[in-house]
Amino acid sequence: MERHFDEQLENLKNQLMKMSAMAEVMIADAVRSVVERDATAIPPVYEREELVNQMQVEIDEICLTLIALNQPAAADLRFILGAVKTNAELERLADEAVNIVQKAEHLLKEEKLKPFEVIPEMAPIARGMVRDSLRAFVNRNSDLAREVLLRDDRLDDLRSKIADILTVCMAEDSAAVPRALDLLLISRYLERIGDHATNIAENTIFVVEGLDVRHHADQKRAIKRLYAAGSDGSHPTKVD
Amino acid sequence: MERHFDEQLENLKNQLMKMSAMAEVMIADAVRSVVERDATAIPPVYEREELVNQMQVEIDEICLTLIALNQPAAADLRFILGAVKTNAELERLADEAVNIVQKAEHLLKEEKLKPFEVIPEMAPIARGMVRDSLRAFVNRNSDLAREVLLRDDRLDDLRSKIADILTVCMAEDSAAVPRALDLLLISRYLERIGDHATNIAENTIFVVEGLDVRHHADQKRAIKRLYAAGSDGSHPTKVD
Repeated sequence: MERHFDEQLENLKNQLMKMSAMAEVMIADAVRSVVERDATAIPPVYEREELVNQMQVEIDEICLTLIALNQPAAADLRFILGAVKTNAELERLADEAVNIVQKAEHLLKEEKLKPFEVIPEMAPIARGMVRDSLRAFVNRNSDLAREVLLRDDRLDDLRSKIADILTVCMAEDSAAVPRALDLLLISRYLERIGDHATNIAENTIFVVEGLDVRHHADQKRAIKRLYAAGSDGSHPTKVD
Repeated sequence: MERHFDEQLENLKNQLMKMSAMAEVMIADAVRSVVERDATAIPPVYEREELVNQMQVEIDEICLTLIALNQPAAADLRFILGAVKTNAELERLADEAVNIVQKAEHLLKEEKLKPFEVIPEMAPIARGMVRDSLRAFVNRNSDLAREVLLRDDRLDDLRSKIADILTVCMAEDSAAVPRALDLLLISRYLERIGDHATNIAENTIFVVEGLDVRHHADQKRAIKRLYAAGSDGSHPTKVD
């Protein structure tokens, strides 16, 4: 029985990693469609969305079966409940890639708008956060999870930077408004991918240490101070 | 034991309803701050956010304890795993109310921008969806859950309507761009509240009927056709 449980748990982790890898490819394709104006990158995103959706259903069932057929110890039970949540976050962040290609479909019909540099800067950060938050979760590695939390600030800063650029751009050139809005939303979708990864990372720390960092802004700031020399940790927690 | 389990389950439902009622008040206050330009409505939203965050942690613990101390039957286990997800959705949708008041803080410093009518139209729909998705979940009422799903389209239409109005407004008056962007985001936050309620409703149907409507667009459209006479159900599923 014990052996079987461990195998099932290993299977759960593998499925989550597979889903996360798929989400990462979706993000890369979605951003490529926007940045390189490459329409061929769009259909695979929709196809993978279907697969991710199927995987979410399957992973939920694996979690249910794991609990129903075994009587997992408290730590394992906490991990499995964490997996149910991680699973939901993964599905949501894959949806953000779909949101991006929906905007790309508009944008590719129009002339290219200038301030594109920030998007390709945001994308690898978001992807790295997804990959590492998942690695942190399945390996119950709270140090790596804390490291992921720190990267979210960079993503927020970049999103704020592109918002400033685009606001000026819209005020100066009324014809650019619809395209600028699309780009603004794309930057928000990338930021939200980072938010989902942040949720997974916070959840990981909770699962591993029984410590709830989700809602302790002070503690979160303390962690950031500890890990990021040079950060004053004084800005308020951002919900958006 | 059985008796105790039922009491614990009842407690779980009560806590979820309490959290949902609190989220509803937050949405109402947040929208009031924007529409009536009432700055006194802002601080209570931040205060309730703290409470909602505490409740999320407590509800997660109730779910964990319920499984660990009992060996719930499959149907109850499915319900409890559903509660873990519903709990996360509730916390996220309360965050959207915080996002709204953050924008309200900007807007109240500026002169009022015209197209405000759509926001007060969206708010009661979003609140109703939250209330009814939770009622559907705790009462395992999949009919009510299906009815909630239908309302999301109305919210999407209104969000699309305000986006069109604000895009024109920005193109015509460059000085209005920052305020128009804030309003646009507020409409998206309200739409996302509806999305969270939709997630809760879909999850309810899954818990009750073991039927996964989350990712079956055809089935979803069929449900919509069945319940909404006059809807042709032909538009594609929206992820955004």
